[in-house]
Amino acid sequence: MPHNHVIIVAGGSGSRMGTEMPKQFLNLCGKPILMRTIEAFTALTPKPNIVLVLPSPQMSLWKRLCEEHQFNVELKLVAGGNTRFQSVRNGLSQIPADDSLVAIHDGVRPLVSTDVILRCYKLAAEKGNAIPVVKPVESVRIDVEQGSKGFDRDKVLLVQTPQVFSSKLIKECYNIAEQPGFTDDASVAEFCGVTINTTEGNRENIKITTPTDLILAEALLNQILK
Amino acid sequence: MPHNHVIIVAGGSGSRMGTEMPKQFLNLCGKPILMRTIEAFTALTPKPNIVLVLPSPQMSLWKRLCEEHQFNVELKLVAGGNTRFQSVRNGLSQIPADDSLVAIHDGVRPLVSTDVILRCYKLAAEKGNAIPVVKPVESVRIDVEQGSKGFDRDKVLLVQTPQVFSSKLIKECYNIAEQPGFTDDASVAEFCGVTINTTEGNRENIKITTPTDLILAEALLNQILK
Repeated sequence: MPHNHVIIVAGGSGSRMGTEMPKQFLNLCGKPILMRTIEAFTALTPKPNIVLVLPSPQMSLWKRLCEEHQFNVELKLVAGGNTRFQSVRNGLSQIPADDSLVAIHDGVRPLVSTDVILRCYKLAAEKGNAIPVVKPVESVRIDVEQGSKGFDRDKVLLVQTPQVFSSKLIKECYNIAEQPGFTDDASVAEFCGVTINTTEGNRENIKITTPTDLILAEALLNQILK
Repeated sequence: MPHNHVIIVAGGSGSRMGTEMPKQFLNLCGKPILMRTIEAFTALTPKPNIVLVLPSPQMSLWKRLCEEHQFNVELKLVAGGNTRFQSVRNGLSQIPADDSLVAIHDGVRPLVSTDVILRCYKLAAEKGNAIPVVKPVESVRIDVEQGSKGFDRDKVLLVQTPQVFSSKLIKECYNIAEQPGFTDDASVAEFCGVTINTTEGNRENIKITTPTDLILAEALLNQILK
C-alpha cells in the first residue's frame, strides 16, 4: 500500500483574531496552534508524509518558531496562493498522482481526534473520499428571498476537516478553474461530479478563527492534557 | 408600556450529560447554570417578570439549591410538561394576552449577552417577534436521498434564544396541537403563519447539553468574569 499524505493548509492572517500574529502561530497552551495541528498527524502510525502550505511572507517566522520550540518534524514546506483553493493546489503539486490517499486539513484545527483522522483515511480507502461532519445542536433556518424559513436540522451537516481523497482523483479535480462556491475540498470534488462520503467528526474539532475560539480550544486542550 | 416577561424553560435531564443531576442544576463557576441564566435577565433595567418552568420532580431540589446559594430572585414557578412545547404552553398560561412582550429562553443558555436580549425585545416591539441567529463558520451540506450535497453556508442560520414575541400573538399560536417539527418557538409561530424576524445572536450563547459544552461555558464565563 502506498504511503498516506496530509496537506496542512495554513493561509490565515490575524485579521479576525485582532492580532498582528497570523492566527495559526498563536500560542495554544504553550505551543503555536499550527504545531499542535501537525502533531495530530505525527501521532499516527505509520506517520503520513506531511506537506505544509504557508504564505511565503510567514516562512521565516515559522522557521524561527520551530527553532524556539525545538520542533523538528520532517515536512515539505510549500508556498501558499492567494486563496485557499490555490494554496491546496500548490500543496497537491507535491503529491504523486497514484493510489495513495491525501488528507487536506485546516492548519487551525488542532483538536481533531486520532479516531476521526483514521476513520476518514479508512473510508476514503474504501470509497475514494471521506469527510468528517457533525450535526448542529441548534434549530436551523434558511435564508429565502423575503426573510428566512425553518429547516429540518436533522438534514443539516456541518463540515470539518481532514477531507481525505484518492491522490489521483483530487489532483485531477484541482486542475479546474476556481469557482466562487468553493469553501472546501469536498465542494471542489463535488463540482467535478464526485459523490462525497461523510463520517462522524468530533465536536472538539473547531476551527480557531476568533479570540473566543482560542479560549474554547485552550479549555478543551487542557481537559485532554489532564 | 406594559411590563416585559421572560419564560425560562428548564426541562432537561442529565442523560446526555452523563450525570444524575439535571443539567440545568450543574455547577457553572460556583453556581447552578439555571441561576446564571436567570441572572442574565435580572441584570436588565427594568427587570422583566420571570416565569420559570421546571419539571415537578425537580422543584424541591431547586428550592434547596436556592437556599444554599441564597438565591432570592422573585419569580413564578410553573410545572413543566412532557415536551418543550407543553412546558412553554404551561409557562404562557401565566402571561397576560396583552400588548406586552414575552421572551422564551432556554434554561441552559446562561451566556446570552445583555445586548442580544435587548435587541430581541426591541425588534419584537417593532415587528411582533424577533429571534437571535448566528451563521455557521463551517461549510454546510444537506442530506439528500442518496448521500448529501454542498449548500451555500451564507444562507444558513443557527437559531438561539431568547425568542421574543408579542404575548397575545404567541399565546394564540400555542393553542394549536403540537407538531413533530416544533424545535423552538419560532417554528410554532411560523407554522401558524407568522413571519419570523431574525437579529444577530452572540456566539458565546451556547446551549449547554454535553460535558464538553460545560467546559466551554466555564472557559467563556471565566473570561467574562475576569
